[in-house]
Amino acid sequence: MMNRKILLRSRPQDWPTEETFEFKEEPVPQPGEGQVLVRSIYLSVDPYMRGRMSAAKSYTEPYRIGEVIEGGVVGEVVESRSDKLKPGDKVLGLLGWQLYGVADADKLRKLDEQAAPLSAYLGVIGMTGLTAYFGLMDIGKPKAGETVVVSGAAGAVGSIVGQIAKIQGARVVGIAGSDDKTAWLTEELGFDAAINYKTTTNMQEALARACPQGVDVYFDNVGGEISDAVISQINDYARIALCGAISAYNYSSDEADVGPRVFIKLIKTRSLMKGFVLAEYMDRLPEGARKLGEWLSAGKLKYEETIIEGFDRVPEAFLELFKGSNIGKMLVKVG
Amino acid sequence: MMNRKILLRSRPQDWPTEETFEFKEEPVPQPGEGQVLVRSIYLSVDPYMRGRMSAAKSYTEPYRIGEVIEGGVVGEVVESRSDKLKPGDKVLGLLGWQLYGVADADKLRKLDEQAAPLSAYLGVIGMTGLTAYFGLMDIGKPKAGETVVVSGAAGAVGSIVGQIAKIQGARVVGIAGSDDKTAWLTEELGFDAAINYKTTTNMQEALARACPQGVDVYFDNVGGEISDAVISQINDYARIALCGAISAYNYSSDEADVGPRVFIKLIKTRSLMKGFVLAEYMDRLPEGARKLGEWLSAGKLKYEETIIEGFDRVPEAFLELFKGSNIGKMLVKVG
Repeated sequence: MMNRKILLRSRPQDWPTEETFEFKEEPVPQPGEGQVLVRSIYLSVDPYMRGRMSAAKSYTEPYRIGEVIEGGVVGEVVESRSDKLKPGDKVLGLLGWQLYGVADADKLRKLDEQAAPLSAYLGVIGMTGLTAYFGLMDIGKPKAGETVVVSGAAGAVGSIVGQIAKIQGARVVGIAGSDDKTAWLTEELGFDAAINYKTTTNMQEALARACPQGVDVYFDNVGGEISDAVISQINDYARIALCGAISAYNYSSDEADVGPRVFIKLIKTRSLMKGFVLAEYMDRLPEGARKLGEWLSAGKLKYEETIIEGFDRVPEAFLELFKGSNIGKMLVKVG
Repeated sequence: MMNRKILLRSRPQDWPTEETFEFKEEPVPQPGEGQVLVRSIYLSVDPYMRGRMSAAKSYTEPYRIGEVIEGGVVGEVVESRSDKLKPGDKVLGLLGWQLYGVADADKLRKLDEQAAPLSAYLGVIGMTGLTAYFGLMDIGKPKAGETVVVSGAAGAVGSIVGQIAKIQGARVVGIAGSDDKTAWLTEELGFDAAINYKTTTNMQEALARACPQGVDVYFDNVGGEISDAVISQINDYARIALCGAISAYNYSSDEADVGPRVFIKLIKTRSLMKGFVLAEYMDRLPEGARKLGEWLSAGKLKYEETIIEGFDRVPEAFLELFKGSNIGKMLVKVG
């Protein structure tokens, strides 16, 4: 039985290309004592992975050349040398872009298929939902009646952020890249307004119309000119949660990420801006998971997934993230 | 007896000029019931006043055309219609650029000349010292062994920030605009290193040398390229307190304040940036004043003043702030 894996062949300078990835076949590995063999069902592709493909220091270790691209996987245990998991168990783990992976049973989370569909553990009640929850609630701290703007609003994180902000009683405005997305945000998810930045010629005007009371909380997934425009509209004591800056991840080193400096605006409004990653909230994950689960069960959280089929299409699915092809969480189904 | 006052004649577009200010003579005003007449001794000139000369919304009301430029004054009561103050009392109040002012006795603070020189109430133990204290302690939160960088380090606020950071056990690096200033910082105030940005061709390199462990706290008074360079050197979980951006206060509307976007750097390092003003800490002023007083009495806080003599020179003193002519707090002695 052969395994297939996708390795990092070379570090991309700007956009990842065919040169970035290498498909490799090798025998399925054998679990050691205390380990299990997991057959992948869903592989997660996430924007943060682009950062790990670079050598630059960041909040996670860079991927190593010649090693499998690590990422979240939902799969099924097919062989076990641990008494904690048995064949047939569904699990979540950091197994990466491969059909089969071996992991310590201790490092896998056993999933309850009755509680939620398996794919949700990589999305709304998984890392992306938790990222939305902690960034919004701990940094954004939206209050009823305040205006919350979310960029990348139709993405995996943004779509959850906006719904949690609605649950808190805020006015919620989403920014996304197609009319299908903006319609989904306002008609399905209950956003108060949504702006298609690709067809909007003047973002500042569009934001001013969508946010007549200004912007109190900005949850940012994109960076760049969209963020420049939102920050120009912030109110006194605004809170800006920086989750991602997908617009700039594929810049080459000679394209500078340059824009209006934020210092004076933040002083005049006495506002706060903070970058964050989910790992900062490790000790509070149960709180987040409980809240997300409650809201999901109560029908207060809706979610969408963009599921690509087939292991060969993993790099393509990853690259589509940066083109904004997905609505909600992007996954690849491989088993 | 005639009063002299300086009014806002017109709003400056970029640098204030002769057109900005109007000197006016009029009779000394009479205090009403509950009020006192104060003869000015020291007038404060501060960078934040530039913001109030513009019509743009900010954290304080813009100055009104034709009215006296408001600011901190230390003076002597010369006539009293309140039982709270008597002639001869020394007071601190928001009286503005004039030789005599009338104010409600309730809005003045009676000063203790034995506790500290009168001028100190406009500086080290006044608004500037308190601004340094709260911005550094509440946003910067320096820990022993961390590296704190201060821009505008030889100014009224920056020079106190650096000394408080030293009291907390941090390594302190100041950025200032002359060799006299950097020598004062390291030789008199105990800064660990200081950089003269005017003679440094590569700020990033100079900072990397002065901060071999990177930057944990940045207290910013200047904005612009200096801040760009400091932010490029921040460590994980850095805290950036934005107090001022004097480099950009006199930009005309067609000169954009543009530089590297900070979003990705703040995400990668999970860092926090916050603009603040002293007014946010109104309910904690006694705490700050007590601490500053203790440190001053214990000889742990040194301060310098640049005192210009003569009412005619108030506009000049104000403009010199932006040229960085002052070491420590800039004051005008008028009585």
